[in-house]
This record gives sequence, structure tokens and C-alpha cells, in this order.
Amino acid sequence: MDQVDIDVVAEADLEDPLLVEGLPGVGHVGKLAAQHLVQELDGEPVRRVYTPDFPPQVTVEDDGTTELTHATFHAVDAGDRDLLVLTGDHQAQSNDGHYRLAEALLDVAEEFGVERVFALGGVPTGELVEEPSVLGAATTEAFVEDLESIGVEFRENEPAGGIVGVSGLLLGLGERRGIDGACLMGETSGYLVDPKSGQAVLEVLEEYAGFEVDYGDLEDRAEEMEEVVGKIREMEQQAATNVQSDDDLRYIG
Amino acid sequence: MDQVDIDVVAEADLEDPLLVEGLPGVGHVGKLAAQHLVQELDGEPVRRVYTPDFPPQVTVEDDGTTELTHATFHAVDAGDRDLLVLTGDHQAQSNDGHYRLAEALLDVAEEFGVERVFALGGVPTGELVEEPSVLGAATTEAFVEDLESIGVEFRENEPAGGIVGVSGLLLGLGERRGIDGACLMGETSGYLVDPKSGQAVLEVLEEYAGFEVDYGDLEDRAEEMEEVVGKIREMEQQAATNVQSDDDLRYIG
Amino acid sequence: MDQVDIDVVAEADLEDPLLVEGLPGVGHVGKLAAQHLVQELDGEPVRRVYTPDFPPQVTVEDDGTTELTHATFHAVDAGDRDLLVLTGDHQAQSNDGHYRLAEALLDVAEEFGVERVFALGGVPTGELVEEPSVLGAATTEAFVEDLESIGVEFRENEPAGGIVGVSGLLLGLGERRGIDGACLMGETSGYLVDPKSGQAVLEVLEEYAGFEVDYGDLEDRAEEMEEVVGKIREMEQQAATNVQSDDDLRYIG
Amino acid sequence: MDQVDIDVVAEADLEDPLLVEGLPGVGHVGKLAAQHLVQELDGEPVRRVYTPDFPPQVTVEDDGTTELTHATFHAVDAGDRDLLVLTGDHQAQSNDGHYRLAEALLDVAEEFGVERVFALGGVPTGELVEEPSVLGAATTEAFVEDLESIGVEFRENEPAGGIVGVSGLLLGLGERRGIDGACLMGETSGYLVDPKSGQAVLEVLEEYAGFEVDYGDLEDRAEEMEEVVGKIREMEQQAATNVQSDDDLRYIG
Repeated sequence: MDQVDIDVVAEADLEDPLLVEGLPGVGHVGKLAAQHLVQELDGEPVRRVYTPDFPPQVTVEDDGTTELTHATFHAVDAGDRDLLVLTGDHQAQSNDGHYRLAEALLDVAEEFGVERVFALGGVPTGELVEEPSVLGAATTEAFVEDLESIGVEFRENEPAGGIVGVSGLLLGLGERRGIDGACLMGETSGYLVDPKSGQAVLEVLEEYAGFEVDYGDLEDRAEEMEEVVGKIREMEQQAATNVQSDDDLRYIG
Repeated sequence: MDQVDIDVVAEADLEDPLLVEGLPGVGHVGKLAAQHLVQELDGEPVRRVYTPDFPPQVTVEDDGTTELTHATFHAVDAGDRDLLVLTGDHQAQSNDGHYRLAEALLDVAEEFGVERVFALGGVPTGELVEEPSVLGAATTEAFVEDLESIGVEFRENEPAGGIVGVSGLLLGLGERRGIDGACLMGETSGYLVDPKSGQAVLEVLEEYAGFEVDYGDLEDRAEEMEEVVGKIREMEQQAATNVQSDDDLRYIG
Repeated sequence: MDQVDIDVVAEADLEDPLLVEGLPGVGHVGKLAAQHLVQELDGEPVRRVYTPDFPPQVTVEDDGTTELTHATFHAVDAGDRDLLVLTGDHQAQSNDGHYRLAEALLDVAEEFGVERVFALGGVPTGELVEEPSVLGAATTEAFVEDLESIGVEFRENEPAGGIVGVSGLLLGLGERRGIDGACLMGETSGYLVDPKSGQAVLEVLEEYAGFEVDYGDLEDRAEEMEEVVGKIREMEQQAATNVQSDDDLRYIG
Repeated sequence: MDQVDIDVVAEADLEDPLLVEGLPGVGHVGKLAAQHLVQELDGEPVRRVYTPDFPPQVTVEDDGTTELTHATFHAVDAGDRDLLVLTGDHQAQSNDGHYRLAEALLDVAEEFGVERVFALGGVPTGELVEEPSVLGAATTEAFVEDLESIGVEFRENEPAGGIVGVSGLLLGLGERRGIDGACLMGETSGYLVDPKSGQAVLEVLEEYAGFEVDYGDLEDRAEEMEEVVGKIREMEQQAATNVQSDDDLRYIG
């Protein structure tokens, strides 16, 4: 296998498309958002990206067949705007692998005429968030202003550690090619998969790009997660009670 | 040393051979199965594979001589079918090393006319298994059906993490070359070397390829392992008893 | 991206410049010193260095815009001497990456006519230091003598582990190109960012190169750090007291 | 820097020399032995080997000057036999780096006409050894017999994990070039630098190659180590006593 292998799955003629990236990350916020977009707007796979920078792994599908690890570009007709949506199960597995992968993804994006990139992700808050805000960062001041005007928050020193992985490099390396980029980061605890934060991020993109999607499916998944959270809290309270009574015992003697 | 060095040990004219891979993995199931096959059917070494992706290491044989770490292809005449059986002591030591190694192994396989690959391995269950089932995964639906018809189990979401390492890539990268592949995974605890699971996997392959091997040796090793397991259980029970009495003491005061 | 990308930000005609390196390290001593130099003497960015050996990361500036991780060379007019000052937020992320990065930095230095390098850093003492000395090491005995004559200390077996990272390699690889080099290491606890140690290092360089800078800003930051240290000490004392009383309780029964 | 840089320090015309390798390893046995050989027999540095596979580091000499990390070949006139002795402070820092380094070292060895290699090292026993035996392993049965006849021990399944690092690869990769090799491993605890074990290894080599060295210096260092060991044992006994009395206290209540 070459350093990066691009399979042409289908051709698509996209007009001034936005690249939307949703690889795994904090709370799987970006991945959930991108997958939802592809599912609700009937995205069509157009390119598959294989590389030794992904883990040496096949996934096993429900019918027992295997798939070599890859990332997929989907052509999505979002009404006013065409989107090129990138989904996948993995980030690159090494420091310089992230650079190689991001460059290869930008090559594909340029082939489709992409001039603007949205990297979707989460920003960890350390606690459960009822109403997640969406934080932003962008390659140009003009882009920052565009996003501020539709409710994206920009906070000094956030995210403190910068933006890492493919999301960060699509902005950083994209800018060096003349591609504008923004990162939309939904607030999320950092401990759990977070469909609600994914929805918050998508709603910003919806407003920016002028499309509409149904959120029923993400809302169902958010409810499931809330049940999980509820159970975890119950267990924690019970555990706390047990520890207390155990301590009581210990201090009796 | 080049990235991969292939030594020609002997030539062999194999007719439509199956590649059978048994590198180390969970419970050493695949390795035990492949070694048993080579031993019982008088396999002949035909190629040795050396690569800097293996550990920097020589093994020391019983006579004091050293062997540089490598993997070996054996030509095996299994009656109805010719087999090309791959054994070795190591997986690749890095992420992209797995890709390089798997590609090199597939090159050798193609040289011998291989069109179908069986990767043998184990799937961890977390507890001791009396009668190990054999789980499967394959590159095509037709291959899945073939295997189901001879008793291989296909379970949704198993193995959950997909198939990693050289086994996974022989399927994933093989498919990209037009080579069909299947992974046969014997259930095993994941804590111990498991000859019984190795036998279960071999029995499936036996039925598929129409050969017969004697299992006396694997059965002996399985019995040895059961004695080991028995001793571990005894020790655990004693330890549990000791802890209890120790706790008793601690709570006296 | 190539292995190393050098952006030309501005041209500068420097006369026999000293290269002054201040990448992050123990106590961020070198980084603080180099940044202070650039700030106080109005350094002008002349080259930016991008490489996959830096982390895959963009930083987010106060205005919400992103910057791909890089290191920057600044032209600094320090009166008698021209300086070429290197600052950045990261060391290389891998063993051989350090070598690649150091060679690339030396290429830029040679382009500007550098024949002498100062690597600035800290040496950990394990305890808080009131009056940090500056330890030295240099590529030639003559350079060692020059530095001894202006108060730099040379102690046998210090630093015990040698000098690692880009600082070490600018000396080691520089010497192989005929570039003399010295490392100035301010004593520092190793636990905290240490502006006072940064000042100590700069004062040596000031004397060597014959320039003058104002230290007001570094002194302010040193005072801030001392307040932090004061609070940590208070907390430690309280914690010690609490543990004691807790122990008392435990031994009552 | 190229992948490996070889500096020619001096030319030497060696007749059928033995390569003797003593890079750091268990108990620094091989390193102590090789250094002692160079020191006692007035070895002359002939080649220095620099590579990004060594750590990014300079050492600081007693006079304050720095040295880029490297390994050194010394020409040693040992009477009957010429030796080419390799010393250094580091193994390679990555899996494939070991292969690259070992190949480069063998290139130099072949340039000097080496046809036989001795890799010196230690084998960990887990406890202090009064009279260390020397274990062996070699590339050919004939070489094994040669060594057995002069007292080297060959034990089944020892060393259990094979021989790793540059020592292992000088044998494994050397054999592939037609160079015979042996590894001499002195028994050592594995916890401490062990000059006595180094001497045991050298005595075997002395007998094999027919030279004589004085061991006064190694014996002095062995005595120093024994004093250290004595102090450690004292401290352990005191600690054991303290713990006991502490336990007594704890169980009073």
C-alpha cells in the first residue's frame, strides 16, 4: 500500500462545496454530527481513503464481512450548498501520520473545488452540560466575525491546548494552501458520547450553510445517553452511601 | 537489510493453495493451530521473511545456536488441497510496520498462486471455555455462507474491536488485491495459551479443505494446560481463604 | 508538507549574528529569556519553520484565529551585535525528529551567516533557588574559557544527563558544521516556570554580546511566580497539619 | 545528518580482527568489559558513528566541552590477535533503528576485514552472584563447541527471551553476511553495574583470543560496588526492622 491510497467510489460534480470533517474526537461530537448529516441528507460515498497511518485493522460488519479501516468522503446535496462530508472511525496513529493524512484529505478536497473547511468536534468541560454552547476558532478574522454573528462563541484562551489532530491540521495546513477553515466545538463533558452536543454543532452549520435536517434520530440517541447518565449517577450515589457506612464500621473499633 | 528480505529456502509447486496464517495472538490459538498443521502434515519451509519491523532479536535454539527473528512459509500437502502455512514468533512492532509486513506476506502468497487466505486466531471471552466455538469473519458474503454451512458462528458485533494485526490486514489488504480471506477465531479465555481452542479452529479448516490431522499432540498440551489451570484455581481459593482470615484478624480490634 | 517547510517572512541583513535558541524546556528558562529578548529589543520575525515533527496542532489566538504550530527566527539588533533569536512552543516529538529539526534550524542559521550559537535553558536542582547560578557547556575549550571569564560556572558531571533535545543538537550537530556553540543553563527548581532564572541567563548573554535590556517585565513575572510559590507552601503546610490531625484520629481507637 | 554518519578518525591495518561489541546493556557488563579492553591495551579510536537513531543529546566532558552522542570503534593490538572494539553510551532508540545501526556497524567491521564477532553482555539472574558464570550463544555449532571447550556454558532455554538489541542483531544480521558471531553473557543480578561479571566475560575472550590484560582496575571497581551492595543491604535490614516496629504499633490498638 502506498502512503495513502484513494479509491474513487463515484464521481460527483459539486459546486463550491464546504468540506465538513467529523473524525472521532472528544465525545465523538464531530463524528456524530457528520454521520447524521450524511444519513439525513442521503450522502453518497465518493472517495475512500486508506493509509498505514490508520490502525492495522478490519471492522466486522453485521453480515460477517470485513472492511479495511478507512475514511470516507460523501457528496451531500444540502440545498443551497453542496457539502463534502468526511467520516471515519480513526485519527492517524502517529505524530507525522496526522500531517500526512491531513495533506491527503486536503488534496481530495481541492480536487472537488473546496475553498472552505469546517472541522467539527467537541471541547471538554469536565462536567455534564445541559445546554451546550458551540465554541469556534477560524483561520481568518473575517471568518471569526461570520461565525460570531450566528451565535458561535469565541473565548479567550479556549480551547487552552489549541486544536489537535486532523481537525487542527485541516485548518493549519489548509490555510497554507489558501483554504479558509473553521473549527466548531460543542461543549461536552469529555466522558461520554454526546449526541446533544453534536446537534448543537450541526445547528450552527445549518445556519451558516442554509440547509435543514431533522434531528429526531440524534434526539433519540441523546435521550438514551441521558438514561445511561441517570443510571451512572444512581450507582455513584449508592457507592458513596456504601463507602460512608463502611467508614462508619471502620471507625467503630 | 531492506525493508523486507525474503529468503528462498526451497521451491515448491503448489496447486491453488490456501494461505493459512498463524502468527502469535490471543491465547496463541492461531500459532498453535498453524504449528500443529506443519508438524503433523510434514510441512516444508519454502520462504523465510526477515524485516526491521520484527523485534531486534535472535532466539537461542536448544543447541546454543542463534536464529534471527523471522516468519516462515511452509508448503504443506494436505491431500485434496495444498496449503501454504505461515508461522512465526512475532507480529510487526509498529502501526505501519503491520501494513508493510502484510503486503510483503501477500506478495509471497501471490507468487505461490494463493487466491484464498485463512487467518487463524483467538477471540477473548474473559472466562475459561469448556467447548470453544469458532467465530468467523470473511471478505465476501459468499465466503461467510460457506463457513456458516460448516459450523462457523457469525455473531453481530463480534469481535467488537474488529480484527487487528497481520490477521486483519491479510483480509483487508488481500481483498484489495482480489484475494478472498476469512478469519477463524477460536473462543479462548484470553489469559492462557489455549491448545483446545487451536484444535477447534483446525477442525473447521479440516472440514473446509478436506484434510485430516491427528490431534493427539494438541490434546496432550490441552491436558497440561488444564492441570495448570487446576493449580491456579487451587491457589486462588487458598489466597481467598487467607485474605478472609486476615480480614477477620483486622476487624477483631 | 515537506519534512521541513521554511517560510520567508522578511529579509534581513545581519552582520556576524549570534544564534540564540529558546525553545521550551526545564522551567521554560530558555523560552522566557528568548521571548524577553525579542520583546525588549523589537525583534522582527524573518523565518517561520513548519514540520511534521512538531505536534499536529493549531494554537488559538486571543482574536479566535488559529496558527499552525511552528518555530520563528527573529532578527534582533542588539547594538554591538546582531542576534538571530529562535522561539517556539514545541520541541520535536520524536527521537530522529530532533535531529531533522536541528539540521533544518542550522541550515537557516548558516543562511544568515551564523558562526556561533547560544542555546538557552534551565538545569533542574530539585529545590527552589533564590540566586540562580548559570551553568555552561560549550563545543570548544576556548569558548569554555570565554564564558568562565564572565561568571558562567562549569561543574564536573553537570548536567549529569548531558544536554538533550534541540539545545543539545544545535551544539553537537553545529560543531560538525564548524559552528561553535554554548549552552547557558540557569539553575531552576524544575517544578515551575522560572522568570528569575531566565533573567540570570540573559544577563550572561548581555555581558557576552555587549547589549542591554530592561528586566522590568521579567521581574514582574518573577514576583508573580513567588506569590504562587508562597501559596503552594501555605497549602503544603496546611495539608501537613491536616494529615497529622487525621493520623492522630486514626491512632486513637 | 544522513541516516548514519561515519567519521574516519584514524586508519588502521588490522589482520583478521575480531569485532568486540560492548554497548550498554544488563549490568553494563559488556560496556565495562569493552572499555577495560580499550584502556588496558591502549586502543586507538579509528571510526566514530553518529546517527539519529541515538538519543538527541550531547554529553558534557569534565572540561566543560560537549560531545555529540556516538559509538566508537577502537583498533586494539592484543598480541596474537587484532581486535576492533566498539564502545558507546547508547543502544538505538527504536525498533528499526537497531537494524539500521547494526547494519552500519557491520559495514564498518567488514571494511576492516572482520569475519568473527563477539557481542559482550550480561544475563540477569535476579539475585547477587558471587562467582558469575559466562553463558554463550553463537551462530554456528562449530563456534558453540569452540566456546564450550573453554568453559562457556550453554543452557537450554537461556536466555529465555533470546538476545535483544545491537548484540543480537550483530549475530543475526552478521550471519546473513557470512560473519560468524558469538554472544558472551556474564551472569549478573540485573540491578547493579557489575564489574566482576565484566571481568568474567573478558577472561573468556582472553582465553579465546590469546591475549592478557591486567584486571586491577575492574577489581577495584568491583570492590567499590560491593561496598555499595553492603550499604544497601544494611539499609534494607534497617527498613525491615522499622516496618516491623511500625506494624507492632499499628496492631496495638
